[in-house]
Amino acid sequence: MTKTITRRSFLAGSALLAANTLLISGQQPPASAGAADAALIADLVAAYRILAQQGVLDGFGHVSARHNRAANRFIMARSLAPELVTAADLIEFDLDGNAVDAKGRALYSERFIHAEIYRARPDVRAVVHNHAPSVIPFGVTNVPMRPVFHMAGFIGNGVPVFDIRKMFGMTDMLVSDSAKGRALAQTLGDKTCVLMRGHGVAIVGPTIQYAVGRSVYLDVNAKVQAQAMALNPNVAYLDPQEAQKIVEGGENRGYERPWELWKAKAMGK
Amino acid sequence: MTKTITRRSFLAGSALLAANTLLISGQQPPASAGAADAALIADLVAAYRILAQQGVLDGFGHVSARHNRAANRFIMARSLAPELVTAADLIEFDLDGNAVDAKGRALYSERFIHAEIYRARPDVRAVVHNHAPSVIPFGVTNVPMRPVFHMAGFIGNGVPVFDIRKMFGMTDMLVSDSAKGRALAQTLGDKTCVLMRGHGVAIVGPTIQYAVGRSVYLDVNAKVQAQAMALNPNVAYLDPQEAQKIVEGGENRGYERPWELWKAKAMGK
Amino acid sequence: MTKTITRRSFLAGSALLAANTLLISGQQPPASAGAADAALIADLVAAYRILAQQGVLDGFGHVSARHNRAANRFIMARSLAPELVTAADLIEFDLDGNAVDAKGRALYSERFIHAEIYRARPDVRAVVHNHAPSVIPFGVTNVPMRPVFHMAGFIGNGVPVFDIRKMFGMTDMLVSDSAKGRALAQTLGDKTCVLMRGHGVAIVGPTIQYAVGRSVYLDVNAKVQAQAMALNPNVAYLDPQEAQKIVEGGENRGYERPWELWKAKAMGK
Amino acid sequence: MTKTITRRSFLAGSALLAANTLLISGQQPPASAGAADAALIADLVAAYRILAQQGVLDGFGHVSARHNRAANRFIMARSLAPELVTAADLIEFDLDGNAVDAKGRALYSERFIHAEIYRARPDVRAVVHNHAPSVIPFGVTNVPMRPVFHMAGFIGNGVPVFDIRKMFGMTDMLVSDSAKGRALAQTLGDKTCVLMRGHGVAIVGPTIQYAVGRSVYLDVNAKVQAQAMALNPNVAYLDPQEAQKIVEGGENRGYERPWELWKAKAMGK
Repeated sequence: MTKTITRRSFLAGSALLAANTLLISGQQPPASAGAADAALIADLVAAYRILAQQGVLDGFGHVSARHNRAANRFIMARSLAPELVTAADLIEFDLDGNAVDAKGRALYSERFIHAEIYRARPDVRAVVHNHAPSVIPFGVTNVPMRPVFHMAGFIGNGVPVFDIRKMFGMTDMLVSDSAKGRALAQTLGDKTCVLMRGHGVAIVGPTIQYAVGRSVYLDVNAKVQAQAMALNPNVAYLDPQEAQKIVEGGENRGYERPWELWKAKAMGK
Repeated sequence: MTKTITRRSFLAGSALLAANTLLISGQQPPASAGAADAALIADLVAAYRILAQQGVLDGFGHVSARHNRAANRFIMARSLAPELVTAADLIEFDLDGNAVDAKGRALYSERFIHAEIYRARPDVRAVVHNHAPSVIPFGVTNVPMRPVFHMAGFIGNGVPVFDIRKMFGMTDMLVSDSAKGRALAQTLGDKTCVLMRGHGVAIVGPTIQYAVGRSVYLDVNAKVQAQAMALNPNVAYLDPQEAQKIVEGGENRGYERPWELWKAKAMGK
Repeated sequence: MTKTITRRSFLAGSALLAANTLLISGQQPPASAGAADAALIADLVAAYRILAQQGVLDGFGHVSARHNRAANRFIMARSLAPELVTAADLIEFDLDGNAVDAKGRALYSERFIHAEIYRARPDVRAVVHNHAPSVIPFGVTNVPMRPVFHMAGFIGNGVPVFDIRKMFGMTDMLVSDSAKGRALAQTLGDKTCVLMRGHGVAIVGPTIQYAVGRSVYLDVNAKVQAQAMALNPNVAYLDPQEAQKIVEGGENRGYERPWELWKAKAMGK
Repeated sequence: MTKTITRRSFLAGSALLAANTLLISGQQPPASAGAADAALIADLVAAYRILAQQGVLDGFGHVSARHNRAANRFIMARSLAPELVTAADLIEFDLDGNAVDAKGRALYSERFIHAEIYRARPDVRAVVHNHAPSVIPFGVTNVPMRPVFHMAGFIGNGVPVFDIRKMFGMTDMLVSDSAKGRALAQTLGDKTCVLMRGHGVAIVGPTIQYAVGRSVYLDVNAKVQAQAMALNPNVAYLDPQEAQKIVEGGENRGYERPWELWKAKAMGK
């Protein structure tokens, strides 16, 4: 296999990357829904940096927000490490994953995760995709992820696992087109999180704060669940009714308390 | 479940939050016991920041101290992430959890943990409530937390587990009123720590330094106990008599040595 | 054994160290291939610092790059902790591990790992040797390291284990001459990584970015694999065909996205 | 037990602490051996800070060095968190643990660990005592600590476990007098490290650099050994002959490479 990783294939990879900035030949770029709310932009930039600072994202992974003016548009960064994202790196997309104006910049090849979830779930206004090391094991072992403590009440009705191989056979594991995004969104169903076998997780929320807060506490819950199971496989998880009451009661107060802290730290204020 | 997490329920959550600042209709706010000792205030602010810096608290959890002038008053922060707490955020409460003067600010909904422990335990002058990931597993697995090393002598007579479901059925897991606080204090009994199933832990001490020091070393002990059990379930814990001698001998010198370090680091000096 | 660690043996150690700067008596130093490309030098310095910052290297371990002007020359630092390396510390070597001009400075005794891999593998342009704690267990337990997620597709065709004892008997475990380096390179074969029993790992790539990116994600994969196996030994690893498609598709885009971030952080920009 | 942790016992603890500064009534303080070498002092201060920065020491634990002018004197800090130690905090002691001139300052109650090891082991010139969480499990589980990789060759002839209860019955676990220190030194024998059941470890070396380097890599080895055993209990440890060759070969070059890095970071240079 190593022989394929030559300079030639390295350049081929770069060529593929450049292709990512182009629309399907002959197609017009979608129209913009206009400038998004400044607070939404500020929160989205903060979300990228917070998730990096909290160890949920590393050099890979991404966050998006649905456009506040148009349900069929969403905003996410150009292909860039989360910790480096600024407002100038944000790009508007339609639900087919087409950029309104990429200005020639490379795009995340997995923007279809976001696009298809926004299409399938009108209640969702923010999506996170990450590869947190703590969650990967639950996608490859048939051990269901369950809430060990109240901060994870949002997974009280389960975390489904998406196995790309079932519908798409042998792939490079990436959700890199609309069909794959649609299949992922279907596995997500009406839940808050969907594990991706051998890859990572997608997490949704009614606000950026929810999607970020859930990403942070899904990571904590994964670590705590693994540790609890190591002590004794017979763990007393939250009852689904307890989880439901947590969600109905405002779910950790909408994460506003940690958000204030996280944003201050991530934006260096 | 996800359908309940709409913008509407998000606002409902905020409404509940606002309600937290109000007294039961028609009631008068309790009288103040007067200004607390300046050193106590400084130590309490430091305690919030130390516990965040030591990884015991994240955006949630809280510390309180009994008022130095009145046994029936205690001081804790308004609803705020621990790392951001300053002296201006501290509020005086009575043992029913009523604020002397909240100035319209949101309160921690679990202040009743503190109030009822102060009522039940005259010897306690500081209380910490945290969700340290290391301790949660011991609250959900029937594996008793026991002292693996001398720094944890203070749990030599056991760490009871409070299961809110036993008395209160299906809840959102929060100790959000006096009845729940009372039940928790009863489970605590004369011990130093009480685990809360699927939630966290409450830790008490005769001074802020003890409560903070015990919180830090309970976290370390939990990690070490889990690791020791993974090597060999047959662990040689401290003998209860050894633990008692540690406590009687001044328990880690009252944590004054690490306190000096922690405070210097947390307050940026 | 302790009696051997006296002042005398300490000095003896230093004497051995000094010997490392000398060529075999009477031999001429190899000729230089000329100044290496400035970008290569900058990337190599960054590689040392990135790997330290990412926790893959500590005070030990090293990175090298093949000289851009001569396939039979490579560049690596003098004996120095990775985090301290600057361009002035880089030295040119031939494939026998001889320095073109060491200027009397001590050399890494394991430079033969690099030299012999460059000799055996014309496709390799960068080599990392590290002792990451996460990977050591896989070299001493007969548990094969396998890819748990798409970021580790580069180990899809296996990670062989080199046991120095098989060919060289009882040693100090170091690959400190050409014969040992040759045996290691032979075990590596056409793979991307080779574990060294009771020691560490060597990782290769077609660019510095690949060798560094693979080092970072081999570490992550080791942690995730161990955690997955603890949940359930029956782990669903990447299929070799999936791994191959990942590598052929450009392998995490040649690590350019995290590289930009890592370099900015490591070089303090 | 909690009832004993009242304000009264807190003060009693402080009284005990004060007593630590006094000599046995009527005794004269020992004479000084004169000023120690400036480089030794600088290295000892660095050692305190390095071990804190490397996570081997927290607010507790200590390092000492034998006086360069007198084999029956050693130097260590007053009772202070390691990260705060400066040259002004260093005090000279005799091998009975008496301070030459404490200037009324509180002393580490476990200075007898150091004193008795210096008495029993003329080859030892530096001693570390720490409570690293990674090593505690090996002192309480009958699982012998063994070298998993070449950086831990210095434990190739074993790590004995000292159980204070065997000779001294129920205690507060502290090695707080000469008799206990003597028993510990006897268990250490001619080894480099001795575990203390339910407490920590003592580590020795022919230089400060060796004692610090061994402390850091004993911690790493403990973590790696635990992880390796979790993968497969049948671990291929270093052969005792391999370990001996490592030690005879200069043992990680006397830790001079990481020492340069650690000292630069710890002293903020």
